[in-house]
Amino acid sequence: MDYKILLKEAEIPRQWYNLAADLPTPLLPPLGPDGKPISPDMLAPVFPMNLIEQEVSTQRWIDIPEEVLEILCKWRPSPLRRAISLERYLGTPARIYYKDESLSPPGSHKPNTAVAQAWYNKQFGIKRLVTETGAGQWGSALAFACRLLDLECKVYMVRISYEQKPLRRVMMNVWGARCVPSPSQDTNAGRRILQEHPDSPGSLGIAISEAIEDAVTDTTGKTRYSLGSVLNHVLLHQTIIGLEAKKQLQLAGERLPDMVIGCAGGGSNFAGISFPFAADKINGANIEIIPVEPAACPTMTRAKFHYDFGDTACMTPLLAMFTLGHAFIPPPIHAGGLRYHGMAPLVSQGIVEGLFAPRAYPQSRCFEAALLWARTEGTICAPETSHAIACVIDEANKAKQEGKEKVILFCYSGHGLMDLGGYDAYLAGKLQDYELPQEQIDRYAKDLEKLPAAPVRRSGRW
Amino acid sequence: MDYKILLKEAEIPRQWYNLAADLPTPLLPPLGPDGKPISPDMLAPVFPMNLIEQEVSTQRWIDIPEEVLEILCKWRPSPLRRAISLERYLGTPARIYYKDESLSPPGSHKPNTAVAQAWYNKQFGIKRLVTETGAGQWGSALAFACRLLDLECKVYMVRISYEQKPLRRVMMNVWGARCVPSPSQDTNAGRRILQEHPDSPGSLGIAISEAIEDAVTDTTGKTRYSLGSVLNHVLLHQTIIGLEAKKQLQLAGERLPDMVIGCAGGGSNFAGISFPFAADKINGANIEIIPVEPAACPTMTRAKFHYDFGDTACMTPLLAMFTLGHAFIPPPIHAGGLRYHGMAPLVSQGIVEGLFAPRAYPQSRCFEAALLWARTEGTICAPETSHAIACVIDEANKAKQEGKEKVILFCYSGHGLMDLGGYDAYLAGKLQDYELPQEQIDRYAKDLEKLPAAPVRRSGRW
Repeated sequence: MDYKILLKEAEIPRQWYNLAADLPTPLLPPLGPDGKPISPDMLAPVFPMNLIEQEVSTQRWIDIPEEVLEILCKWRPSPLRRAISLERYLGTPARIYYKDESLSPPGSHKPNTAVAQAWYNKQFGIKRLVTETGAGQWGSALAFACRLLDLECKVYMVRISYEQKPLRRVMMNVWGARCVPSPSQDTNAGRRILQEHPDSPGSLGIAISEAIEDAVTDTTGKTRYSLGSVLNHVLLHQTIIGLEAKKQLQLAGERLPDMVIGCAGGGSNFAGISFPFAADKINGANIEIIPVEPAACPTMTRAKFHYDFGDTACMTPLLAMFTLGHAFIPPPIHAGGLRYHGMAPLVSQGIVEGLFAPRAYPQSRCFEAALLWARTEGTICAPETSHAIACVIDEANKAKQEGKEKVILFCYSGHGLMDLGGYDAYLAGKLQDYELPQEQIDRYAKDLEKLPAAPVRRSGRW
Repeated sequence: MDYKILLKEAEIPRQWYNLAADLPTPLLPPLGPDGKPISPDMLAPVFPMNLIEQEVSTQRWIDIPEEVLEILCKWRPSPLRRAISLERYLGTPARIYYKDESLSPPGSHKPNTAVAQAWYNKQFGIKRLVTETGAGQWGSALAFACRLLDLECKVYMVRISYEQKPLRRVMMNVWGARCVPSPSQDTNAGRRILQEHPDSPGSLGIAISEAIEDAVTDTTGKTRYSLGSVLNHVLLHQTIIGLEAKKQLQLAGERLPDMVIGCAGGGSNFAGISFPFAADKINGANIEIIPVEPAACPTMTRAKFHYDFGDTACMTPLLAMFTLGHAFIPPPIHAGGLRYHGMAPLVSQGIVEGLFAPRAYPQSRCFEAALLWARTEGTICAPETSHAIACVIDEANKAKQEGKEKVILFCYSGHGLMDLGGYDAYLAGKLQDYELPQEQIDRYAKDLEKLPAAPVRRSGRW
């Protein structure tokens, strides 16, 4: 047996790890519309100052507030599991461990930061949080966190998802949040779009614009915006995943893993599982660290490292990151959480440095991997998570060919119980893969030429 | 903190507890169509002999096979959790503990017996299991178990549920099972009904008839039928829940609980949490044990203790149980798992004895309780589970009024992520309660007069 390595609540990490402290070359600063670095003050209408301080911090360890820990302990420390059934099926000498983030009430890793963000906002006197959501993982996580911390919550949900995934909206309602389809009649941005396109299916870009407008136009000053990935403080909050995993691997009698793998859309679950091990790599350990993205949205594997806006409507500061261009519209793959045009600056700089070696998989191979996983390990993973599993299976097979006893660690970022439509399409042979012609990528990338270039700085160590 | 009391895999119970060994008055035997007790042989075309032996066993402890334990350990021992946030909200001196069975891959307690049944069938040389399912909890649990033990699985799913809850069907497909809407063209029973009623929405009774016919007519002799509740061996397999809970309460520094509560449809999760404590009650401990049912299907609180068929089509042996009559059609409440016309013979005899004191709740109060639970504890429970929670909240409030430090234990039998439609109706104010007029109950009960009466035997100790 020994499928699970458990930590007691008292063993939960009490500090987050900040990779910004250890990057051999420092992060490039966010820029304002004038191309100059923005000051923290300029973000104050959008985020509370305590989170802005975290966003720009280069302190290595940041204390997790006791009240945040208390809420996280409703489901944390999460189990580290060994995928023994999959190993047996593959006949691999690799030992596959995965951190199970699917057991949180909303079903993914997202509440790790939702709870922290809600808490810091509350400390700062904020009464109401607004956000956007695509497929609904993030919106339901923030709804959950706001409920437990007694904040109001409003979620702008991309209209097509709102209509296709009504159960995610119900989850948010159960936790007391208001969820409206975006574009909505509630903001200028939404009304403008509805006037021109009454049938607009919406997009993450539009929803972000609506949520930010909602936050900054609240005259009481008690509303702020909350983001579920990409930003430094969001990634910071997720490092509890990797920090727990490190303790658990030791309990399992392992030293450091040979490989760390996570799917990456905006980068938060990947950062969560990998950053604490990136620190070891920076200190000389030999660890392959692989963020996995969909071939249909190849931000890390085929796009440029450049300054770009975080949203389609160009309301955010410019971030230095791998980006397909803020106007890029990815094909409608089932992994809704992996359809973002950019990649977190911290992950992007790690790729520039050579700390992380990204890969891309088409969704058919990911669903194939998810099905093998369900039929061996027994659980049904999120379409996002299946990208990590596809890579893990490839690496386990490679270890078999090479006869190597590798230790592979990955992040099981969420369950797929709300996303069974993708499985249905796969089983019915109706799942489509999307080839992205280079000219299409080039077309969207053209917008970047008008924006400041991001200097490529690397230490040359990897 | 200390929300969770965890056991290591090595601490999992290695034997099931059989209440039949300790009942002060013995169980009444199942009867054949002639009114005479049936012999185990007569069940052989339906169940494998090793499970039939368990069904009639009066041995107190029955070893759990190692291979069954190995699969159960994919998610077991399940956490015992303390509902601290709910306690604080209610301001109750009661300490509320719950056994979290929602973390199994299919999302409920059902796989505890599905895995055991699949294993015993496989040992007996069976290659294929067939069953029926209503809302899909049981069908998906058996699909999961058959996949992990490499058996074929076919599920007859009540047509209206098949159409209303397509995602449950997808879950079964993911685990490799075939799931067909019932009535189907695959059996005589199904074809007969479709000929008369081409638009039949189906019923659990019809689906059971189809599944049993499928099993007994397979000429290879390698197919058997599997049932998810009611029978003695099914309840036996669920006692691992209460046995784990007993160890965990001790770790939490508690002695025996003052109250044990579980929802009850066929009786299996209630039996699982309560039978190990019923043993203590038989040995003199003072424990209130409460099975909770829907007011719309009041088997335990308003029906007769009588011999009756387990299915609508009168294909099963006669069981001595509380029953609304095998033709009873319950109103369409959202707790699909609590709509069975009968109650497990072991639970029924426990009620006759006075060991268990059943209660009934209307579904509006259950959803109200579920919403309070989601907004304090943070998780979304199954509509079935909400019946237990409604009773727990009443008892916690009573403890507050009385100023008593009661220890309340209940079974959190499953999550509600596949059942959010009920929450949506409740939040929209569209949830309906159903009054059952006595004349309706009397009408269905009339059928019972033609069947043998079940003598009421009690020791008079409670």
